[in-house]
Amino acid sequence: MSSSNYYDVTEWKEGNPYQDIGEVINSIIADIKARQTDANINNGGKPGAVIYIPPGDYPLLTQVVIDISYLKIMGSGHGFTSSSIRFNTPESEWKNWHEVWPGGSRILVEMQPAAGGEASAGAAFYIERSGDPRISSVEFADFCIDGLHFVDDGSGNDDPENTYLNGKTGIYIASAQDSFRISGMGLVYLEHGVTIYNADALAIHNNFIAECGHCIELRGSGQASKITDNLIGAGYRGYSIYAQNFGGLLITANNIFPRGKSSIHFSGVVRSSVSNNRLHSFYPGMLVFEDNCAENLVSANHFFREREPWAPMQAYNNGLDDLYGLLYISGDNNSIIANHISETIDTQYITPSGATPVIIRVVSGQGNHISDNHIVATTETSQAHDAAASACFSTQVSALLATDGLAALDVITVRIEKESRQNIVLDSGGEAQVVLDRAVNAFRATPVPGQSC
Amino acid sequence: MSSSNYYDVTEWKEGNPYQDIGEVINSIIADIKARQTDANINNGGKPGAVIYIPPGDYPLLTQVVIDISYLKIMGSGHGFTSSSIRFNTPESEWKNWHEVWPGGSRILVEMQPAAGGEASAGAAFYIERSGDPRISSVEFADFCIDGLHFVDDGSGNDDPENTYLNGKTGIYIASAQDSFRISGMGLVYLEHGVTIYNADALAIHNNFIAECGHCIELRGSGQASKITDNLIGAGYRGYSIYAQNFGGLLITANNIFPRGKSSIHFSGVVRSSVSNNRLHSFYPGMLVFEDNCAENLVSANHFFREREPWAPMQAYNNGLDDLYGLLYISGDNNSIIANHISETIDTQYITPSGATPVIIRVVSGQGNHISDNHIVATTETSQAHDAAASACFSTQVSALLATDGLAALDVITVRIEKESRQNIVLDSGGEAQVVLDRAVNAFRATPVPGQSC
Amino acid sequence: MSSSNYYDVTEWKEGNPYQDIGEVINSIIADIKARQTDANINNGGKPGAVIYIPPGDYPLLTQVVIDISYLKIMGSGHGFTSSSIRFNTPESEWKNWHEVWPGGSRILVEMQPAAGGEASAGAAFYIERSGDPRISSVEFADFCIDGLHFVDDGSGNDDPENTYLNGKTGIYIASAQDSFRISGMGLVYLEHGVTIYNADALAIHNNFIAECGHCIELRGSGQASKITDNLIGAGYRGYSIYAQNFGGLLITANNIFPRGKSSIHFSGVVRSSVSNNRLHSFYPGMLVFEDNCAENLVSANHFFREREPWAPMQAYNNGLDDLYGLLYISGDNNSIIANHISETIDTQYITPSGATPVIIRVVSGQGNHISDNHIVATTETSQAHDAAASACFSTQVSALLATDGLAALDVITVRIEKESRQNIVLDSGGEAQVVLDRAVNAFRATPVPGQSC
Repeated sequence: MSSSNYYDVTEWKEGNPYQDIGEVINSIIADIKARQTDANINNGGKPGAVIYIPPGDYPLLTQVVIDISYLKIMGSGHGFTSSSIRFNTPESEWKNWHEVWPGGSRILVEMQPAAGGEASAGAAFYIERSGDPRISSVEFADFCIDGLHFVDDGSGNDDPENTYLNGKTGIYIASAQDSFRISGMGLVYLEHGVTIYNADALAIHNNFIAECGHCIELRGSGQASKITDNLIGAGYRGYSIYAQNFGGLLITANNIFPRGKSSIHFSGVVRSSVSNNRLHSFYPGMLVFEDNCAENLVSANHFFREREPWAPMQAYNNGLDDLYGLLYISGDNNSIIANHISETIDTQYITPSGATPVIIRVVSGQGNHISDNHIVATTETSQAHDAAASACFSTQVSALLATDGLAALDVITVRIEKESRQNIVLDSGGEAQVVLDRAVNAFRATPVPGQSC
Repeated sequence: MSSSNYYDVTEWKEGNPYQDIGEVINSIIADIKARQTDANINNGGKPGAVIYIPPGDYPLLTQVVIDISYLKIMGSGHGFTSSSIRFNTPESEWKNWHEVWPGGSRILVEMQPAAGGEASAGAAFYIERSGDPRISSVEFADFCIDGLHFVDDGSGNDDPENTYLNGKTGIYIASAQDSFRISGMGLVYLEHGVTIYNADALAIHNNFIAECGHCIELRGSGQASKITDNLIGAGYRGYSIYAQNFGGLLITANNIFPRGKSSIHFSGVVRSSVSNNRLHSFYPGMLVFEDNCAENLVSANHFFREREPWAPMQAYNNGLDDLYGLLYISGDNNSIIANHISETIDTQYITPSGATPVIIRVVSGQGNHISDNHIVATTETSQAHDAAASACFSTQVSALLATDGLAALDVITVRIEKESRQNIVLDSGGEAQVVLDRAVNAFRATPVPGQSC
Repeated sequence: MSSSNYYDVTEWKEGNPYQDIGEVINSIIADIKARQTDANINNGGKPGAVIYIPPGDYPLLTQVVIDISYLKIMGSGHGFTSSSIRFNTPESEWKNWHEVWPGGSRILVEMQPAAGGEASAGAAFYIERSGDPRISSVEFADFCIDGLHFVDDGSGNDDPENTYLNGKTGIYIASAQDSFRISGMGLVYLEHGVTIYNADALAIHNNFIAECGHCIELRGSGQASKITDNLIGAGYRGYSIYAQNFGGLLITANNIFPRGKSSIHFSGVVRSSVSNNRLHSFYPGMLVFEDNCAENLVSANHFFREREPWAPMQAYNNGLDDLYGLLYISGDNNSIIANHISETIDTQYITPSGATPVIIRVVSGQGNHISDNHIVATTETSQAHDAAASACFSTQVSALLATDGLAALDVITVRIEKESRQNIVLDSGGEAQVVLDRAVNAFRATPVPGQSC
């Protein structure tokens, strides 16, 4: 590759990527800036560059700081493996393992920021630029960012590796930006996977972001972006996907697995879509719309909640009880249409004890349209659950598949709180399953088998 | 890279990519053809090649002509930035800008075709082959095609850079083709982004195609193709997505932003899907089905229309009034199910004055099924709108988020014209919001809150 | 590329990729293993590698055996072309063809396994590892695996190239694995395209897998995976997508074309999604859920079935008659919501003769929710069908588009068999079109135009 705008971290003249890849990439960025100095020559001038990270283990001790547009950083391998399974296996067994750590084109984040500290301080990649125009078209593709270890949170947590805290962030974008892409990445064991402020026309596509405190956080505000086709799953402490003050966000085709305090949490998000995802969680509040989320669409999703089956994580949850709502909606004119929602939990594990779990709960706002959702609630057999608790993959899956012979569980499929009015609930539960004030809402019950209508 | 089938435009022996990359690529294609001469040796013979474009500014003065299968042209950066914002900023300010132009692996289309002329003549990449078999598996990936400037259209348009005319096309495919891929590209300031005749098994995936006259046009006829996971937005003059005489087209997971004469326009398209997209527009007619579009599915989409907020573009629109229909349907047996549709516009801006806007309008055909659509219509506050008109990103987003306290706007949620019969309209508006002849159509009103059914 | 973890098959010191790429890749894997020997040094140790296959024809005589994590094998061209069209064109015409074979970065599978034999034996790429942890993050990207020829099946089949049998498999994964990716590939003329046992967090994305006996088979068991955004179409003998004992599978944004014994076949699959796909088939049973598939979601899909139009394939079908159900459902609590289903077939081709075809058929299980599906059934004109039988692309498409003036065809839109109970059928057909026992199921008919409700 003879182009001066193509860089390979293993061939760069300054620094040593096997000692500190952060220093190497910063040196490359300085070189790009030294060479591309004129912003406006012959309709061009600053095309940016690509930095290639071949497969390998690359420690990062120095934060990479990006303030140029059109920089693409790419590897050849997302390199995910489960660190959580490893750290919950006795270390004495590791000596028999084929490999112990994640791989691919892998950044080992060896900085030591304060756990629970500012996400920006502990970011492996930090992007910020003031002035005009907004920084554009920075791309991250096909490499791994590994936070390595979680740390003691001082709470007496049995295992520091299960805290989901280490103060490390994979990618942190501090300033308004346009047309960024994050695709093909593998992010693991970071307190924050990707944190982005003021996104416009962002695409987060086909990544593997799991076993992080939070996975994707869109903060500040933003518009017209996509989170599509990812495999995602945060720890019990944070969000798998969080968005704040966003308009026109499309979240689709994602497979969002546990745990996640919430699978998707919106604060003040409007006119956005959560459609056609598969979501799996262990706690109530798997979808939360708060702070007047308005005119959003939740459609064609598959939601599934069960109890935490894995022993090392059974001590943790998000603190919400079964009255909170599996889907918690605060805001106006949202649409919840054509979703399948499954919940399976043995009655002894319902909180508060004896409560009837609530599936879709509208706590405030008006004009929400909840229609044609199929809600399936069953009690879980202990046998199935115990099997799922096995460390053995095939036994786990067997448990997952154990839907035969489950008994029906009474749930409130939809509850509209008094603070919310003018909502319409259609074909989303029978007369006995939907709780609302008919004087101020509309309701059509799903017909009951055997009762001709 | 020692393989003879791997080419880097910056290393090729003929031509200079920094003077005319078109000449270089044509020379490479000639080399491939000179080397791969036997169509049928040992089950092989003509595997094609890859041409790599590293990040950089590459003027194109000569049209690239492709008539071989299995050619992949790839870069390392889609390089999009908004040229529209730049051209609507005083040039005197550019001197303070970090960078002025798009970047990445960037083709600067410096040909000067006639504005509004034949799209083929002004194409940067022109693909055509006669005979058998159809040309197959040409791929474009991860580079930028920049049309640079729009031109005076002779209409007295204040700013030539806002005409969306320059006669330039990014990629033009003239002959029937099979299994092409366009992915990861950035296309900007082209009169036509991608124009494709007679596509089969085409994939247009994960591109950024915006600020073009038209973005994607599938013409002639075609079948079994995908337009998925793109960020797309045409100018006021053309289509974001256009398809003609197509069967089995899947348009999904796209975030289609303004402006676009239509976001999606189908002519004679059948058995295709528009599902699970987010669409945002400033004019009526954001989805148009004409010339007997039949048996198509429109499902799980989020549609949002508001008034143009940005001062430089407020002089333009697509000429349609609010009676035209935000979704305009002509044809048989289409399905419009489970969509969310938001419209917010102050009554003073409705045309014709005093009219009640129509959201879904079926103008001809029969057997359409329109069900479970949630339509939210509000008047926009001037304050919010003025804020949106700001050039400041954060102020714009604030306006976008201003859904609180909006007043309801009377609209016709569904209108079935007399020329259309045997349609079924369910749960898509109340008695007062749906206009149709019950003698020849079926209707079930969305229940009204407070009126028990 | 100086990194020791980047390999180019055309530059490797052992073997000759133009004689046997299998031997070359196995030699490279041996080198990786010889160099990366310590599983646990400084938080790293075995990052894996990338093996690059430039465009070219590469025979494979030796099976590639992969037992290391983090190996990425990538090319620069999926290289698909239709081998079926070629083999059904007289060989005498090939001499006038531009190219005869698939291309791109192309593996020619020249092993000669037994047709119909073990899929593992004939695999070009075979992955297996015992012990801990599960093998992780192997990736296949952007190359072509071509099985070259099908073979005589001994049945008197007129043309051996139409048997869809040759004992060859593209990618076979024998042992439990985690976080694999298969993307951008082209697979053609293999008896099995991709066969994967015990998948976890698998992503099969943006591939072209067609003209294979089976395309994608997920066997054994599995969880939390995605099959997204692919172009797929098996032969008449096998499955386009098959999954067994799976939980949390997301199948979305795929364009699944004919033929396929089934487009999608689930056995014992639970809590999974088939949403937002476009599916086209020539036979009943295009979607089959058997062996107690439970709590799955089928939503926002477009299904289209017509009669086989292409003469060379009209002798073949999957043996199912029109009473079998276009969608065949066995299991509990599944959701079939908001789909469009089109069927067009001339009455003379219905089997058994005189039967009324069944579209959605629930054969056992309980609690299924079937709602808001729009089913369009028409008789096909012979003229349109004969046109479709043409080898000419444009004539075929014309036939595909011939929806105008089709006559309505009587069908059973939903049939609930006696073995199934407690199902709910809403807005998915009129009184005359839905067959169920109202004493044990619930039913709300789609209103009929002209009959006010």
